[in-house]
Parts: sequence; structure tokens; C-alpha cells
Amino acid sequence: MTRVEAIDDDRTARVAWSLLVEPGDAVAGALVAAMGAPAAWAWLLRAAGSGEVPDPLGRDDAPGPVGQAVEAPGRARLARALDRWLPRLPGLDVDRPLDVLHRMGGAFLVPGDPAWPAPLDDLGPAAPVGLWVRGRSELAAMTRGSVAVVGARAATTYGERVAHDLAAGLADERTTVVSGGAFGIDAAAHRGSLARGGPTVVVLAGGVDRATPAGNARLIEAAVADGGAVVAEVPVGRTPTRSRFLQRNRLIAALAAGTVVVEAAWRSGALSTAHHAAGLLRPVGAVPGPVTSVASAGCHRLLRDGVAVCVTDVSDVLELVRGPGVEAEEPSAARPGDELPEHARRILDAASRRRALDVTALAVRAGVSLDEASGALGMLELEGAVERVQEGWRLASAGPGRVT
Amino acid sequence: MTRVEAIDDDRTARVAWSLLVEPGDAVAGALVAAMGAPAAWAWLLRAAGSGEVPDPLGRDDAPGPVGQAVEAPGRARLARALDRWLPRLPGLDVDRPLDVLHRMGGAFLVPGDPAWPAPLDDLGPAAPVGLWVRGRSELAAMTRGSVAVVGARAATTYGERVAHDLAAGLADERTTVVSGGAFGIDAAAHRGSLARGGPTVVVLAGGVDRATPAGNARLIEAAVADGGAVVAEVPVGRTPTRSRFLQRNRLIAALAAGTVVVEAAWRSGALSTAHHAAGLLRPVGAVPGPVTSVASAGCHRLLRDGVAVCVTDVSDVLELVRGPGVEAEEPSAARPGDELPEHARRILDAASRRRALDVTALAVRAGVSLDEASGALGMLELEGAVERVQEGWRLASAGPGRVT
Repeated sequence: MTRVEAIDDDRTARVAWSLLVEPGDAVAGALVAAMGAPAAWAWLLRAAGSGEVPDPLGRDDAPGPVGQAVEAPGRARLARALDRWLPRLPGLDVDRPLDVLHRMGGAFLVPGDPAWPAPLDDLGPAAPVGLWVRGRSELAAMTRGSVAVVGARAATTYGERVAHDLAAGLADERTTVVSGGAFGIDAAAHRGSLARGGPTVVVLAGGVDRATPAGNARLIEAAVADGGAVVAEVPVGRTPTRSRFLQRNRLIAALAAGTVVVEAAWRSGALSTAHHAAGLLRPVGAVPGPVTSVASAGCHRLLRDGVAVCVTDVSDVLELVRGPGVEAEEPSAARPGDELPEHARRILDAASRRRALDVTALAVRAGVSLDEASGALGMLELEGAVERVQEGWRLASAGPGRVT
Repeated sequence: MTRVEAIDDDRTARVAWSLLVEPGDAVAGALVAAMGAPAAWAWLLRAAGSGEVPDPLGRDDAPGPVGQAVEAPGRARLARALDRWLPRLPGLDVDRPLDVLHRMGGAFLVPGDPAWPAPLDDLGPAAPVGLWVRGRSELAAMTRGSVAVVGARAATTYGERVAHDLAAGLADERTTVVSGGAFGIDAAAHRGSLARGGPTVVVLAGGVDRATPAGNARLIEAAVADGGAVVAEVPVGRTPTRSRFLQRNRLIAALAAGTVVVEAAWRSGALSTAHHAAGLLRPVGAVPGPVTSVASAGCHRLLRDGVAVCVTDVSDVLELVRGPGVEAEEPSAARPGDELPEHARRILDAASRRRALDVTALAVRAGVSLDEASGALGMLELEGAVERVQEGWRLASAGPGRVT
């Protein structure tokens, strides 16, 4: 049993806390934020030794410090938290998991590191105490302006294609794709990014030493090898569980500047990611799909509920995360006659290709005045839309023609 | 040349105005609203005879009537309007088109008729002066709470199927489907409604005597024969033109309680219907489709721009037009463990089917306290999710199992 003694430095204390608590434990987060990780750890050891719940702010002995930036959790919450933490204390080993991580070239990031992604602080006390990272460790730079592309495991060919193409397009725009490494949409998104040489970040629900699901191990290792990273909040060695999956989703939402759901069934983990992102006031996009496809029902639900904005291509997604500064490219499918004044358009409608009509007939057909008809015909003749023949006017054979 | 003389009764005068003006002529609408149709007609005849622009409110001769409910158009607008109306006056024949209509069993509806759909009044001066109707003439009753299902001519199999099924479902809910009788989505919608015996209303851009497009003539006649109606603002004999198509769209939007766009390209007439509906504060829905389909691009644009709400099935559409009173049926896909408290769910995650674990091991794995673990195990045992064996606890073989 190593290290179940005092820990002086912040990083090691955070490793210890990471080993002790489950992801999203807001009591631990608040305690560490209020006291600092080493002091919080010392407090824990006192609690373990005494069987009591010491006041974390020293209010047992003296009036507590005034003006604490972060409120420490109340006594009753601490007592309940100790009940769930202390069973893990015996045998807790800080060194071995760190060794495993370091042997894999990984690093344990903590708040304050230049590489620490500051947006995680938006999670408040539920922010991770530290991150287990393999691959490129400049996580802050890599995830700035990044996009989470997430979705169903049970994806369709359509969904996988869209996820792949979106991620590839984002990589072309030097935008990192963050996802969960799962089968289906996640994997397609990572693949799309890698295909264009983009760095991609895989956020796992289990330890970074075990690429899960095993079927995606090669893909996940490729993310590490190709300039991206694999990230987890739980220590190496831990298996993914349902609650860890759900907490992992909040991490994806917090890491990325915006979240896009490509395919999701009516109930899907990807929806939890979307709701986490919305809760963090991050923009959320949903890719629509056929209403006949259950794999898109969750996306449509997000659109209906106003949680997500409809996104259909890379420019929509970039507008989502960067704001409307990036102009979506509007297909300029101008149609013949679009630019004409109303009465000229009506004359164009009224004119025939087969049979020439005089000005009066055209004015009556079109419901415009004779003056308007004459003016319009002059303009249309200049544009080559109508031609004057002996009997009057008719549509030019090469002109824009009638649109009905 | 008949009837280019004074007309005493409102209905006949409105027929004359309908023959004289193009749909959506707000000057004519304002004039008829301010003076009444016969007086407006008399004014027109005076203008034609004198070559002047008489003051419609008699302000030439005497102080004008006080407290006119509707403001008559200004002198300059009237002069321009006369320029476009007068060319049509010679030869204007009220009787013949009415004869054609009556021989087809049709009726010319005017505001004030019990069958006149009052929602058309929302169009203000651009409201039609009258409606040419074939089939069931109780248009007010038939269109109350109706849904416009519109979309692209160049529809896909997907879009046509969705339009058909939506319309069929609406017919089952005794909701009239209104559309434009065009190829593609419109036709599929009419067909879906007819397939379930629902009345359907076809709003044409040309006269009701000529079912256009000719390829849909049988379908349009079926709408008449099967308890529905064919409606137009332009007189019998008129051909559809581009501006008439656009004005027809405003009529569809105004007739229906809500508009649903099933498929529409980036630029599509169906979008104009949607925008007309939105402008009239009628609810608008758009059916999403694959982002890879150009036929859905217009729908996605409506969703993105916030013009339309995402609708995927009949209950979504009913909620759109009737309000949230109609509850969308939510698939109750409860998953095992959903109803459990958080710590019980974590214990379920931590337990194994193959290997039994004691309470302490489960608590450590799950990151919960011993008390919580014991309590959770008792609850899970009662639910048959876990079973107690000699070495401790394991997942019951028939239980809900672990969800990852």
C-alpha cells in the first residue's frame, strides 16, 4: 500500500483523487477546488484515521477563513462522500497507474498546465480533477475551436458517410474532431478526420491503456499515432461502465467548442452529449435524416425541441462554432426572370414561343398596362428573351423562356 | 361585349373584378373593400368613359365620407392600376365563364358566403375578390383546421412516400389536406388523403375548368368526385403562369391552418408557400430528409432559418396546427436500470455475470459506500437483477444485465 500518506504536490494528489472518485463527483471537485488537492487529500486521511468528518475549512478548531472563493461542501454531503470514497482508500496506489501511463508515453494533465483545456472549467465542481492523456499532449491548443461529432453506435451507411465527410471537411478547415471512439458515428468521424490528416481526440469512458471497444483499437491507436490524442478521466486500468459512459459524454461536450449529433435513436447516449453541451451553453447541431429512419429520430427530436440547430454540411458546422462570420455558401441558382421587374416577368410568362402576340394582347394576357408592356418588351428584347417578328412578339428560341 | 355596364349585385361585380385583375392585386382589393364591388365597378366604368381617374370616395365633388373602414388607394396608384386594368375591359364577359363554371357544377364564392373561408381575410387587400370552386362548395368547413402539404415537383421516392403517409394519417384524423395539384409531393399528398377517404382541396394556379398539369387531371377530378374541391382565384379558361403560381401559393398558405413542406430544393415554390404561411403567422413544418438529397435542402433551410419546425409524423403535424394539446406519442423505450437510483445503477454496472463479488469489492468497483452497496444489492435482488451466491453477488442470468 503506497502513498496512502500525505501528498505534497498538486499533480500527485490529483492522481490520487482521480483514483479514488468516480467521474463527475462534485463533492470531490468542490473539496479540491476549495482546499487544493494536497490539503483535500490530507483532510481525507484525517477522516480515514479518525472515523470523523473533519471540517475541511478548519472550522472545528477556529473561526473558518473568511472569503473562501469556493464553498466547501456541507458536513452531511461530506459524510456521505466519505462513505463512498473510503472503501477505495486501502490499497490505493498512485505510482503504478502513472507508470503504466508514462510507459505508454502518456501524461497526466492538471488544471494550470498550459495544455489543460480551460473550457473544462465550465463544468464547475464536476470538472475532472485531472486527465489521463496519450498521444499529443497539447490538448488545450488541439481542442480550441474543435467540434464534437457524435452519434449512434447503430449507425446507418448514410450516417457513417455523413459523419466521415463532415469530419474530413472539418480537418480540411484545421478543425479538430472530438468523439468517443465508439462504433458507428464516432468511428466514422475519427476516420474522416484521420483521412485528411487532421488530429482527432478520442475521449474514452475507460482507461487510456485499453482502447475500447476492442474492435476500434487500431483506429484509436491511429489517433494517437497521427498527431491526435486519447483522453480519459478515469485512471488506466479501469473498464468503461454505464455511468462512466454518461460522464464521458459531458467531457466530450465540455472539450469541444460545439457538438454535432449525426445520427441518434430516440434514446441515445449522443443525446446526453448534446444536452450536456446545451447545458454548457455550447452550440449544438443535429444532422437531419430520413424520417423513416429510426437512427435519425433522436436528431429530429433535438431539432424539434430547439436544443439543436439543423446542420447539413461543413459550412453549417463552422458557422455553428465560429458564429455567423463564416458565410454559408449559398447556391446561386438564379432562375431566368428572377432579376426582372414584376411586369416584365409577367410579360415573359404571357409570351409564347410558337405564336407571336402584339403589345395589347400581351398586356391583356399579363394584366399589365400597355406602357408597362412596351417597356418590358424593350428590356426583354435587349436581353434576348423575346424577339420582334412581323405579327408582334414571341419568346426567343435561345432565351430564358417561360418558367411554369 | 356583355356586362361592361353597371353591375348591381356584389357577386357578379366580383366575378367582373376577378376577370379584370391578376391575383394578389392589392389596389383592386383595397378599392373593392373600401367601396364595395358594384360601386368599385361603377367607378371603373366612369374612369374608362372619362379617361380620368375619378376619386373613388367622391372627393372630387364633395367632402368624402367620414370614417371609411378601409382606406382607398391613392390617386397615383389608381392611375397605374387603371393602366393595367383598362386594356382588359373591352370584351370582358361575365356570363360565359360563369356558365362554364355552373355547367361543371361549380360555384363562385364571395366573402360573406357561409362557405367563404374567413382565414382568407388575413390576406388583407391582397385577398381574392372571389373564388372559383368545383366540387364540394362548403369550403369554410372543409378547410377549417386543414393542413397544406406541399413540396417539390422533382420529388424523390422518399418524399412522395412521406407525403402520402402524412396525408393518409391526416385523413384518418379527419383533417383536410390542401395542396397545389402539382407533380411530386402535391400529388402524393392528394393521393394519400384520397386513399383514406379524406376530402382534399386542390388549389390551382389556372382555371378550375382545366386540371393542370394534364398528367394529374384524373387525380384532380378524383378530388372533386370524392368529396373534396378544386379552387382557383383566376377565372375558368385562364392558364397558369409563373406569377399566378406564386400567388396561388399564398392562397394555399392562407386557406390551411398550417403548412408542411415535405421536400423542397434550395429554391422551390414550396418555400414561398412556407414563407407566406409564416407571414400570416400560420405554423410551418418542414420534414427533414437526408442531407445528401438536394430535394430536402429547402426543408433544411427552413429549419435552419427558424421558419419551420421539424415534423416527422402525423402527431407532430397535428401538434403543429392544434397546439401542444395533442401529445406526441413518446416511444417508452425504458432501458434496464433506468428507474434505479444512481448508486444501484452503478452497482449493476460493477457486478459481473461470471464472477461473484462481495459487497466491499462491488462498492469499490462502483465507487459507492458500503451502505449504499448493501442497500442497492437488496433492491436489485428483489428485482431479480442480481443473485446472492456463496462468494457474494453476481448478475442474475435472467436479469436486466449490464448495459454498456
